[in-house]
Amino acid sequence: MTLQTINTTKAFGGEQRQVRHGSAVLNCDMRFSVFLPPQALRSKVPVLYWLSGLTCTDENFMQKAGVQRIAAELGIAIVAPDTSPRGEGVPDDENQAYDLGLGAGFYVNATQTPWSKHYQMYDYIVSELPELIEAHFPVSAKRAISGHSMGGHGALMIALRNPKRYSSVSAFSPICNPSDCPWGQKAFMAYLGENKAAWAEYDASQLMSKATELVPALVDQGLEDDFLARELKPESLIESANMSDYPLTMRQHEGYDHSYYFIASFIESHLRFHNDMF
Amino acid sequence: MTLQTINTTKAFGGEQRQVRHGSAVLNCDMRFSVFLPPQALRSKVPVLYWLSGLTCTDENFMQKAGVQRIAAELGIAIVAPDTSPRGEGVPDDENQAYDLGLGAGFYVNATQTPWSKHYQMYDYIVSELPELIEAHFPVSAKRAISGHSMGGHGALMIALRNPKRYSSVSAFSPICNPSDCPWGQKAFMAYLGENKAAWAEYDASQLMSKATELVPALVDQGLEDDFLARELKPESLIESANMSDYPLTMRQHEGYDHSYYFIASFIESHLRFHNDMF
Repeated sequence: MTLQTINTTKAFGGEQRQVRHGSAVLNCDMRFSVFLPPQALRSKVPVLYWLSGLTCTDENFMQKAGVQRIAAELGIAIVAPDTSPRGEGVPDDENQAYDLGLGAGFYVNATQTPWSKHYQMYDYIVSELPELIEAHFPVSAKRAISGHSMGGHGALMIALRNPKRYSSVSAFSPICNPSDCPWGQKAFMAYLGENKAAWAEYDASQLMSKATELVPALVDQGLEDDFLARELKPESLIESANMSDYPLTMRQHEGYDHSYYFIASFIESHLRFHNDMF
Repeated sequence: MTLQTINTTKAFGGEQRQVRHGSAVLNCDMRFSVFLPPQALRSKVPVLYWLSGLTCTDENFMQKAGVQRIAAELGIAIVAPDTSPRGEGVPDDENQAYDLGLGAGFYVNATQTPWSKHYQMYDYIVSELPELIEAHFPVSAKRAISGHSMGGHGALMIALRNPKRYSSVSAFSPICNPSDCPWGQKAFMAYLGENKAAWAEYDASQLMSKATELVPALVDQGLEDDFLARELKPESLIESANMSDYPLTMRQHEGYDHSYYFIASFIESHLRFHNDMF
């Protein structure tokens, strides 16, 4: 597999890069962003994978969250993949809805037509991307995962299903119970069909309620988030954590909304949390 | 004058807002962004005015520079105006060039047709906007000014011409000598005509060489900046500072380019510099 560096920019003494590569899993070319802290020049550093929300690309988090400052201090590489397969031949929702198709892969392996050929984001995030990162960048095999909204769902679900692969997981404003909210139901019906057993394998609340191998989890949720009651449902995750005695820290924040300003306000504590677990 | 708050978002315990207002100076409606730190709930805080570069609006700096964290720590309000007049009837360059007209006001008072009716950015930044901010927000009369590229030119030039109004000035990658570079010559010829005496009044290097009232100045410049030799010319500013014994700190940074990642990497030291001077 060949990597093509699209651009490199110095930031906080480290390097911010965009990289393009062919994905065998997704059957298309993909782009990701990576921040390498200055420590990566001298030794292998752990990696935090960041999964973004609906409509985002690999760029939004890197440009808006202010994560590089803390990553440079702690010596953590950050990898931000795209939110769906892209490019010619990759199907989109027929109405180009923001919450299905391009920019809305939901981090699942689609089984349904026309999605299944390209929309295999679960395998891409869990296997292909880390293999590529660990082969081509100065990183160790220590991994953490985090994300926002749809990407918060992705991070929690992936850590719950792969507890040996991640030392910690965190999320901002995650879709906690996608089987039971409009965004999740629309996406799961399209990508997975009517089989609710398949849905359960991608639902953080359902997975957490039965968890036995426990990856420490930190979740931040704003209480002025417009999507809170209808789409995010943190109470479902809290209930599940109580059922399995899961090490979940759920913090709720007065006045904060769903935006990157919320993420920027609390990203430092997420990095310190992950750093403590590496 | 009435202000219309377009949106308010909590960030770092303070408030990030976008505000619309009618501008008598610019003969159009204008939008600006403002960050109010948590200290502004209890007492009046000083203001840092941020002038952005070509193609930017009031949003770029607020979304990408990570300034709110430090502003919230130090108790400084940040005000980021737009980079030109906007809206129906406001002329643009006939070829919609990125470096003239909309998004490229260069912080001057235009004297030439068709620009002079709306392109009065100097008066807007020096007088109208601060009057409005000081009348409607919990801020003191302590002001500092900073900016990037075209906005770095604006900040330096405005502080040099109004030393009593600002306690300090800083810039990232400023156009130091606009009378002597392609960007500046194109804009000054269009907005000011052929009268070079008018140009000199808007040229930081020319102003600094004759300065007698001295506003402490900090400038950061990346040495991998694609515009360095042709457009920015920090050596002109250094020469001028030597002529007037100006309190200019010019820092040059290996490897950094013209992007917001450069700004984000050093914005903290700018805020601490301004805070020390308030």
